[in-house]
Amino acid sequence: MTFEPPVLLALDLAGTFAFGLNGALTAVRAARLDVVGVVALGMITALGGGIIRDVLIGAVPPATLRDWRFFTLAAAGGLIAFALSRRLHRLETPILVLDAIGLSVFAVIGASKALAFGLGTGPAILLGMITGVGGGTIRDTLVRRIPSVLHSDLYAIPALVGAAITVAAVRVGIYGVPAALAAAAVCFLIRMLGVRYDLNAPRPPGASGDRGSPGDDT
Amino acid sequence: MTFEPPVLLALDLAGTFAFGLNGALTAVRAARLDVVGVVALGMITALGGGIIRDVLIGAVPPATLRDWRFFTLAAAGGLIAFALSRRLHRLETPILVLDAIGLSVFAVIGASKALAFGLGTGPAILLGMITGVGGGTIRDTLVRRIPSVLHSDLYAIPALVGAAITVAAVRVGIYGVPAALAAAAVCFLIRMLGVRYDLNAPRPPGASGDRGSPGDDT
Amino acid sequence: MTFEPPVLLALDLAGTFAFGLNGALTAVRAARLDVVGVVALGMITALGGGIIRDVLIGAVPPATLRDWRFFTLAAAGGLIAFALSRRLHRLETPILVLDAIGLSVFAVIGASKALAFGLGTGPAILLGMITGVGGGTIRDTLVRRIPSVLHSDLYAIPALVGAAITVAAVRVGIYGVPAALAAAAVCFLIRMLGVRYDLNAPRPPGASGDRGSPGDDT
Repeated sequence: MTFEPPVLLALDLAGTFAFGLNGALTAVRAARLDVVGVVALGMITALGGGIIRDVLIGAVPPATLRDWRFFTLAAAGGLIAFALSRRLHRLETPILVLDAIGLSVFAVIGASKALAFGLGTGPAILLGMITGVGGGTIRDTLVRRIPSVLHSDLYAIPALVGAAITVAAVRVGIYGVPAALAAAAVCFLIRMLGVRYDLNAPRPPGASGDRGSPGDDT
Repeated sequence: MTFEPPVLLALDLAGTFAFGLNGALTAVRAARLDVVGVVALGMITALGGGIIRDVLIGAVPPATLRDWRFFTLAAAGGLIAFALSRRLHRLETPILVLDAIGLSVFAVIGASKALAFGLGTGPAILLGMITGVGGGTIRDTLVRRIPSVLHSDLYAIPALVGAAITVAAVRVGIYGVPAALAAAAVCFLIRMLGVRYDLNAPRPPGASGDRGSPGDDT
Repeated sequence: MTFEPPVLLALDLAGTFAFGLNGALTAVRAARLDVVGVVALGMITALGGGIIRDVLIGAVPPATLRDWRFFTLAAAGGLIAFALSRRLHRLETPILVLDAIGLSVFAVIGASKALAFGLGTGPAILLGMITGVGGGTIRDTLVRRIPSVLHSDLYAIPALVGAAITVAAVRVGIYGVPAALAAAAVCFLIRMLGVRYDLNAPRPPGASGDRGSPGDDT
């Protein structure tokens, strides 16, 4: 595993915990699961995106399975969500903010890691986005929902922007902790604006709302 | 990436574009998605099968992420489908033909690549088929449909036949551009006959039509 | 592929056949599929968990694609299930027992292989469990059911216990055929007790049964 500056590592760990917590909470609400299911889906949400990225770039075993801190924080998030699922509803806003931090840091770190393993500009941006949204996509598929990233909210687009800024910074030779934090901050801001003003990515022309997907209550 | 003869490369690129276009169109019809979802599902359809194959044979990063032409054509197909989804209905036949070309070329190239990486006869045929049908399977799962390849049409079987002819040609030492084109042509013909005469693979004995899967309208 | 003692190999092969048979039977009941779909889902159930494990630890091509016996037994199980799906209902108990043997052996072998590839304690236990339950999870997702392992039965927990005993035995230096069989036996017993007394893993506090998932009739 390459060296990660402390500030990025701290945000990466915080994001992993938030994804585990939030992923497990979403799973609890979407389907009737037992403790194994809730914790498993929390861990999949937290670790899944990075695992897909690491498998695709050939960095196996994936970093999150080799570093016990990520593994443990993801499991802890899932267990806390299982135990406190009813009370955590009150904490929706801080969880949403933590989740956006996770999305931002995952997109930036994912894109820079893909570049370090020799991928081109387009694939590196894509893998940055996948690092951010991949885990939640697997979780939604497992609980039989159309992944929310495919149809609602500004979730993938901020990750794409953060990853693109990261790749641009590497290409012009100014990537470092400040550039990484700036790229993550842009992603975070777009995501928060999307939440605040309920923004959505454009729909196909002529797509009226008449083919709603039952069960998508995110 | 190994050298690919120009005629196979051209068909491979055409098939990638067709899969991106057709995959995104299918996604538009199956679920209410935004631009990210439509383009993502087009790209998954076009690139997913080859990515699964490359991950399983250890050829990472996958060829389609390293060669910008595949990546770009898959994205272009998805974007065109997003922009023109309503008008493309009229082009159903040419899209179906292009899609069958993609299926045929993917099965042949997938099987020969699996052999080149040391897999045995059975697994190489299987990986040829997966190269052809894997992307559409992931797409259908993400939009919450039972993958059409599992229950309808002659889609997997032509791919299996094309992959099997490819493996046989390699084993007897006559594999080259003519043999590859012949294998792809057989796959293409079976697929087109299946479309024309609405052929289906056999169902389990005693399976009456009374357990239809709602929402499968492919 | 590392050397596998004959008794473990025999159980591994028996489990692969049982998973192929049982996986295909479950698929037949859950959705209207053709022969390609039934056999494919049987093979995915039998080989999927080991393939996920091998991809994650970097052991590609996966062992089950390199050893023709696993490949063939998985396909044979699926084909028999396709041909005899109506008559196999009478054999539910022996199939359930064979399936529990498969789960136990897969969890033990999966955990010990993950350790051999350098993973830590937690990830090795997790990969042992995934080897046991991963194939069925993919199958359930493809036929659009919430994976039964996430919400019902004692299925993941016996696999976790078997994998944990395996890892503990390796860590204290007493792993060998007797320890492997003992770990598998504990997993098998917990699974059988769960089936006999209809035990379930705990649900989230306050989760009443009012959000049942339609279609989950396992």
